This record gives sequence, structure tokens and C-alpha cells, in this order.
Amino acid sequence: MSMCILSLSIAVSSPMAETDSLPAALPRVETINRLPKVDLSAYRHTLPVHVAIAPSPLSKEAPPESYRGFVNLGMLLLFGNNIRLIIENYLKYGILISFPGSSVSKGDWTYTALTHIILPLNVLIAFSLEAWARKRAIGYRKRRSETIPQPGAVAAGDFPDPKLTLQTTKRLDASARLEQSIVGWLHALNATAILVWPSIVTYYYIFHPFMAMSCVIAGCIQFFKMTSYALVNHDFRAAYIFDKPREELGHVAKVHSDSVQVTNEEVYQYDIQYPDNITLKNMSYFWLAPTLCYQPSYPQTKVFRKSFFFKRVLEILTCLGMMYFLTEQYATPTLRNSVQAFDQLAVASLVERVLKMSTTSVIIWLLMFYTVFHSCFNALAEFLYFGDRHFYRSWWNAGNLQTYWKTWNLPMYTFFKRHAYLPMITSGVHPLVASIIVFTISALLHEVVIGFPTHMLLGYAFAGMMCQIPLIAITQPLEKWRGPASGLGNMIFWVSFTIVGQPACAMLYYYHWTKRNMDASASSV
Amino acid sequence: MSMCILSLSIAVSSPMAETDSLPAALPRVETINRLPKVDLSAYRHTLPVHVAIAPSPLSKEAPPESYRGFVNLGMLLLFGNNIRLIIENYLKYGILISFPGSSVSKGDWTYTALTHIILPLNVLIAFSLEAWARKRAIGYRKRRSETIPQPGAVAAGDFPDPKLTLQTTKRLDASARLEQSIVGWLHALNATAILVWPSIVTYYYIFHPFMAMSCVIAGCIQFFKMTSYALVNHDFRAAYIFDKPREELGHVAKVHSDSVQVTNEEVYQYDIQYPDNITLKNMSYFWLAPTLCYQPSYPQTKVFRKSFFFKRVLEILTCLGMMYFLTEQYATPTLRNSVQAFDQLAVASLVERVLKMSTTSVIIWLLMFYTVFHSCFNALAEFLYFGDRHFYRSWWNAGNLQTYWKTWNLPMYTFFKRHAYLPMITSGVHPLVASIIVFTISALLHEVVIGFPTHMLLGYAFAGMMCQIPLIAITQPLEKWRGPASGLGNMIFWVSFTIVGQPACAMLYYYHWTKRNMDASASSV
Repeated sequence: MSMCILSLSIAVSSPMAETDSLPAALPRVETINRLPKVDLSAYRHTLPVHVAIAPSPLSKEAPPESYRGFVNLGMLLLFGNNIRLIIENYLKYGILISFPGSSVSKGDWTYTALTHIILPLNVLIAFSLEAWARKRAIGYRKRRSETIPQPGAVAAGDFPDPKLTLQTTKRLDASARLEQSIVGWLHALNATAILVWPSIVTYYYIFHPFMAMSCVIAGCIQFFKMTSYALVNHDFRAAYIFDKPREELGHVAKVHSDSVQVTNEEVYQYDIQYPDNITLKNMSYFWLAPTLCYQPSYPQTKVFRKSFFFKRVLEILTCLGMMYFLTEQYATPTLRNSVQAFDQLAVASLVERVLKMSTTSVIIWLLMFYTVFHSCFNALAEFLYFGDRHFYRSWWNAGNLQTYWKTWNLPMYTFFKRHAYLPMITSGVHPLVASIIVFTISALLHEVVIGFPTHMLLGYAFAGMMCQIPLIAITQPLEKWRGPASGLGNMIFWVSFTIVGQPACAMLYYYHWTKRNMDASASSV
Repeated sequence: MSMCILSLSIAVSSPMAETDSLPAALPRVETINRLPKVDLSAYRHTLPVHVAIAPSPLSKEAPPESYRGFVNLGMLLLFGNNIRLIIENYLKYGILISFPGSSVSKGDWTYTALTHIILPLNVLIAFSLEAWARKRAIGYRKRRSETIPQPGAVAAGDFPDPKLTLQTTKRLDASARLEQSIVGWLHALNATAILVWPSIVTYYYIFHPFMAMSCVIAGCIQFFKMTSYALVNHDFRAAYIFDKPREELGHVAKVHSDSVQVTNEEVYQYDIQYPDNITLKNMSYFWLAPTLCYQPSYPQTKVFRKSFFFKRVLEILTCLGMMYFLTEQYATPTLRNSVQAFDQLAVASLVERVLKMSTTSVIIWLLMFYTVFHSCFNALAEFLYFGDRHFYRSWWNAGNLQTYWKTWNLPMYTFFKRHAYLPMITSGVHPLVASIIVFTISALLHEVVIGFPTHMLLGYAFAGMMCQIPLIAITQPLEKWRGPASGLGNMIFWVSFTIVGQPACAMLYYYHWTKRNMDASASSV
């Protein structure tokens, strides 16, 4: 370094000495000006290009580098790989799709239609029950208020016999409580019927699994809706008959909403009060609305946006078409080719099949999610001026499986939280026990939704859901270990859920389905 | 809303009225305290869960949402898809690799070894030339300084005849210039010989393309190194003979570095000055150093980090193994299966093959890049205390093809910039013309490196490189159109370069290679 400075100082001093020594013909200013006018065509190759000590960008010592480009490359490779698989599939199979529904038998159509027609009947029964209970409640309240001293009566000094009043009230209350129980049990019967009826019809009379599934799922939704309707009105009725002040309800709501973590500051107040909410119009609204939780009123939007509505409808049609195409063209051949691997229990082939299936199944699943939870629910909500469109949260960023289950299906989650988890917690049940109970109910319903339509109550769906509890216990500490920014928890979620879990389950069911139906057709021949 | 507030005010006022009207048995404080003590087991189902108007997270109206989870899913799918392809490949082919080099003939080994042995001879010739020129330059400078008045002589009044001095100087200068030219031409001959010799040997005597390529690439590197050595020393010698002040060189460097945009403030000053740099040791250092640009001295590191060096060596061995495995196990079968598609010109099959090839080829290419530009060069640099490790920049984030060509291979880029582009610019050539000339030279060399070893001078490599000029012209506005953050430019870069360009070229060459060798073996039978 010192040598460098030395040579620099020599370089600076020597030309000045030289110009000083030249004959005085040239003025000083010119000599100074001459210096920068270097002939650039000479000595240009001597330019120093290696000028400093610096690490390579990929070295540990280098400053942090962006690898965004590699993410882009990855996405392009994924895209390219799948375009290739589409071409490969086309070269191998041509076009496989047929007209949707052409493979469905006439009997299937009839029974499916019948099951769906039953649904409004179930609603009418629930409403009739409620209307009857309402009438009784008004009566009770009236008679009960007559036994209790009125403010006006007190002022006039017209006291009834307190002992007599207490007896009358007690008798009335006991009678009302009995009726409350009866109404409750009748509601339970009505709700259970709509869960059992489609399951039985499906199991015995509908062959096509997708047709059957539409019946069972509709039954389940109906079951949840009617349960919520009955429970909410049961509580309202009790408050109405026994004349509980409204802020007690408000207080319960506040306590609950603290656990639910409602975002708005004020607790939402219903616009309609019991018994005014027991109308056919109010019930029909709830029946159609994209929610499983009954409320006398919901936050309402002011306008119906036509373009928004039609965009969602277009999305539904497009996504349904895509899902149908993906199922027929990609999922079915892969599933068909997996049967042999299952038969031989060839591990490498099985893994290969599951991985081949994973891309198709994850895309179908994402389309299904988008169609139902975004397009359908938003279209329906827009049509009904239903304000709260939180049908899901950003579950795709879930760092553990619990977050996923809490965010992907909010109608279901809210139902279980409102009508099962929180009531259990406030009754003193341990949160873990309450969670396990909720997961068990959910697992049973998953088994119903998959087992009955496929006519195979194998318990895989139940087991898959029950596995979520230990998986949550594993993924939660893993997420914390590396921090949410690492994406490790999210990766584990995706792997367990969409890469391995779903395609493996689809294959298991397809295998058993094929075996059963092949054996059946073989024995019939 | 007003209705809601109204009902709230009723709810607030009515209980107070009621408690006021009760018999005075209970004190006021107690009645107030009683209110919050709600029996939580009742009315719990009435909790409002839909409390506000809110859009769905995927709606346009919703606040911006993170989709990080989908990127994770994409990466996992890519990984899963390729694990699947590995299993598929294994099930189809088993293990394909053989001992490396077992397919190389004895003649190939001999000629390859011979070519590599020639390289130091070329260095020795270049050095001898330089050493001779140095001796002559010292002589010229001495005789020239004798003809020019010395500061001491001027002071003593001992003036030589100015006319005679000018004549002598002119004659000396002309003679020196002639010798400069001769040395220049001899250097050019020597450099060209090392480019031509391996190409010819390769073309006529070495069958195995990878063995042949090692010879041609070594020749090219040698050609660049010797050219740089000759050009830099030519300029230094001129400055030395004609006694140009050092800061004129410094000024040229400064002007150049303004265009090069050197990051450090000061222009780097060489530690060694001409003619002291003309030593065998100095030349050997340059010959081995990971650069194509000769400098009398380079920024030097202070310590040799053993662990760093051995890590790089381990990386080289691992990456070479992986590249060999990928080539034998994945690239070769894909290429082999593409021949039929080429023969039939089946477009769908060809696209499928190119896309199948793309993942393998991009991974091999990335490994090659890492092995050569990171591991090899860093190991070599560490061994030689070579400080400037900028062998590449973050080209993977390149938003257009120009950025890519400027950043992926800095030794090459720096060579062309220092010894071709900047000298042309400073001579008044238009930058676009200079760029086209540089790309043409580069394209010719690409053709040499690929055409001679494969014995097929088809012009694809030349055409591929020449295509970069219009591609740059297209990608630059596209990058600006959407902004660099969109990643559009980067996507186009990856598609054109690694997804389509490289695998398509590999297939073209493989096809012609197979046809040529199959035809040859067919005609010999």
C-alpha cells in the first residue's frame, strides 16, 4: 500500500518537473490543460479490472443475496413439467371425457332428486315446531307476568299474596321447562332424520358416488342448520318466558365473543327480537344463507352488485368444467393404474402413483375450495345481501394443521365453536377434551359423507380426521421451532395434507371401490 | 342502525326500572353486582357470530393478502413431481451409469493428453516474446532519454542541437513502433495457434465429445489469456518506451472505470510496474489465476483458509458426480427417445421431449455453473490468494437477457469489455455496433467450442448466440413495461434460456450426432 502511494506521488511530481524544464514557448495554462487530453486510443488495455477483495455472491461471507429468480425458475419448471404431462396424457389416452352425467343411471337420478325434494319438508317441520313453541311462550310469559307484581300495581298498593304468586310462578316455570325439553327433543328428531334419511337412501339405492355425496352433504348441511335454529331459539325462548333482561344475553355474548375474539369493538345487536323472528321469511333466509349459524338478523349489504354476482356464477361454471375435465382426463387414469400397484403392494410403484396423483388432486381440491367457498358462497351472499363474507381465511399460509382447520371452512368452524366448543368450555369442560370431542364429531361426519355414498364404511375418513389431533400436536412445536417465517410449518401442512394425505386417501377408496364392484360384477357373471 | 340503538336503550333502561320497583329488601349495590353474574350455561347459543360486513380474503375488495403458502405448495409439487420422475425412471431403466470414462477410446485419451500438454509451451513462447520485447524496450528508452534534454543538462546550459535530437527521436520511435507491431503479430500468431491446434486435433482425432470439448475450451481460455497478456504489456511497453507519465495511464483507467462503473472510489494502482512485471513467476500466476484479464498485480488476500479450500474441492467432486449421474441416468434416455420424434417431426412429441429434458438440463447447467464459477474458481483463488472473487453476479434475478450475459460469466464479460468493447467505444465506434461485434466474436467461439468437439459445424450455436441480440431488444422493453418487481422479464429470461433454448439445442445436436454416427456405423457394416 505504501509502495502504491509512493509511486503515485512520483507520478504526480515528475510531469510537473518536466513541464517546468521545457522552453518557455508554451504558456503554463496550456501545459496544465494538455494533461487531461489523453489519447484514449493508447494504453487502454491497461485498465485495472480486478480492483478489490470481494467474496463470490454465493459465499457465506457475501452480503445477503436475493434468490427470487430461482423461485421464478421453480414455478416455470412446475408449469413446464405439467404441460409435458398434459401432452403425455394426450398422446397416451386422447380425449377421455364424455358428456357429464351420462354414466348415471335413471334410478340414481330419481333417488337423488327425491332426497333433495325432502329437504324443504324438514325446514317446514322445524318452523312449525318453533311457531307452536312461540305461541306457547307468549302465553306463558303473559300468565307469568300476571303473577309477578307490576310497577303500576306496586305504586297503587295492590299487592297480591307473595306465597301464592311464588307457587303459581314455580308451576308455570316447570310446565314451560317441560315444554322446552319436548320442543328440543322434537327438533333433535327432525334434525337427525335429515341426516339419517339421505344416508340410508344413498347407501341402498344410489350407486354413483358423486350423486350420492350430493345427497349426504345436503343432509349434513340441513342437520347443522336445523340444530343451530333450534338451539338459538331455545335460548331466546327461555329468556323470553322467564323474562331475562336483554343485557344478560348481551353479557353472555360479550363473554363468548372475548373467547371468539370478535374484531369489532361492540358486540353485534340483533335487529329483530324474539318472538318477532319466528317467521317463515326469517327462516327461509337462514335456510338459504351461506352460514350454519342461525341469527335473528345478519349484517346486511345495501346494494346487489350485478357484475359481481355474474362473475361468481361464471367462475362456478368454469371451475366445475375444469374439475370435471381434470377428474376424467387425469385423475381417473392415474387411479385406474394404481390398482395393480395396490394388488402387488409394490412400494416404489405406490409412491410413484401417489405422487403422480398429488398434483391433480391438489388442483381439483383448490378448484373445489374456490368454487364452493369463494364463488358459490359469495354469489349466494350477494343475492341475499348477506354482509359477512368471511367464509375462509388465508389458510394456505397455515403454519400448522390447527390453523388450517380453524381457517379453511369458517361456516363449519363457527358452528362447532358456537354450538359445541364454547358451551362445553363454559360448562367447565377442559379445552383439550372439548377439542377432542369436536374432532370426533367431525371425524364421524367425514365418515358419513364419504362412507355412505361409496357404500364402504371403511373408517379411513374417520381415522384420517382423528389423525389430525396428533398431527396438530406435532406441527405446532415445529412451527415455533423455526419461526413462522421459515415456512417449515407451512411445508409440513402442505405435505401431510395435500401431497400425501388426500391422494393416498383417494387411492385407497378407489382401490376398494374397484375391487368391490369388480368382484360384484364377477360374481354376477 | 337506529332501531338497534333504540332497542339497546330500552334494554339498558328497563332492568333499572324493574330493580327500582322491587321490594327494598335487597340493597342497591347487590342488585348492581348481581347483573354480571350471569349463568353462562343458559343463552350461550345466542352468541352473534356474523357481526360485520366484510369481503372474502380472495375478493378484490379485501385488503392485500399474502400468497406465500402457494409458493411453498408450488415448490413442494415441483419436488414431488421430480421424485416421481426419479422413481418412474428407476422402474423403467434400473441403474444406467457405468464407470466414468469407460466408453472413451485409448486414442481419445492420448490426443486429449497431448493437447493439454501443449498448453504450457504456448505460455513459454508468449513469455519469451515478452522478455525479448522487454530487453529491447529498456534499450530504446535508454537511447531515447539520451536524445532528450535532461533537467540537469538544461540547468547547466548544455543544450543539444534541437533539430538533430528530434530526428534521432523520430527514428528511434519509428523503429520501436515497428518492433511493437512485430511483437504484436507474433503474439497474435501464438495465441491463434493455441485456438486452432486443439480444434483441429479434436475435429479429426478425438471422437468422444466431452474429451474433445475439454481440449477446445482449454485452447480458448489460453487464447484469451495470451491475448490479454500481449495487449496489456504492449500498452505498458509503449508508455515505458515513449516515457508517458504514469498518471496518463491512471487517467485512462479513470475514464474507463467510469464506463465500467468500478465500485471503489480510487482507481486500483498496480503494485508492480513495467518492466518489473515481465517475470516467469508473474506470468505463471496469471496463467493459473481465475481471470482472463492480465494485470501486473491483483488484489491479494492475506490468509489461505484450509477449510474453505477443502469445502470447495468437496463441492467440485460432489457436483461432478451428480452431473455425471444426471447425464447418464436422465438426460441420455430422454435424448435417445427424442430421435424418433425428430425423424417423424411429430410436434406434440417434440414439445413433450423438450419439456421433459428441460428440468434435467437446467439442473445439470446449474450444477455446472456452481462447480466451475463458484467451487473451482474459489478453490483456485484461495490457493493463489486471489482477492477478487466476483466471478459472477446474481444473474438468476436477471430481468432481461442483456443483464444475464453481463453477469453470469464475469471473466469472459470483463475480457470482452476491457479488450474489445471499451477500446472500440474510445475509438469512436457506436456502442450498438461494438456490442454486435462482441456478440459475433462470442457466437463464433461458441460454435468453435461446440462444433469442433461434436464434429458438426452446423451453426446452431452461432445462430443461438446471434439470436441473443434481438432477444435482448425484445426483453428489455418487456422488463420496463411491467417493472422489475413483476418478475416478467426474469420469467422470459428463464423460459428462453433454460427451459426452451438449452434443451432444444441439446436435442438438435444429439439428433445430428446420432444420425451421423448411426449412418456411419450402418455404412461400415
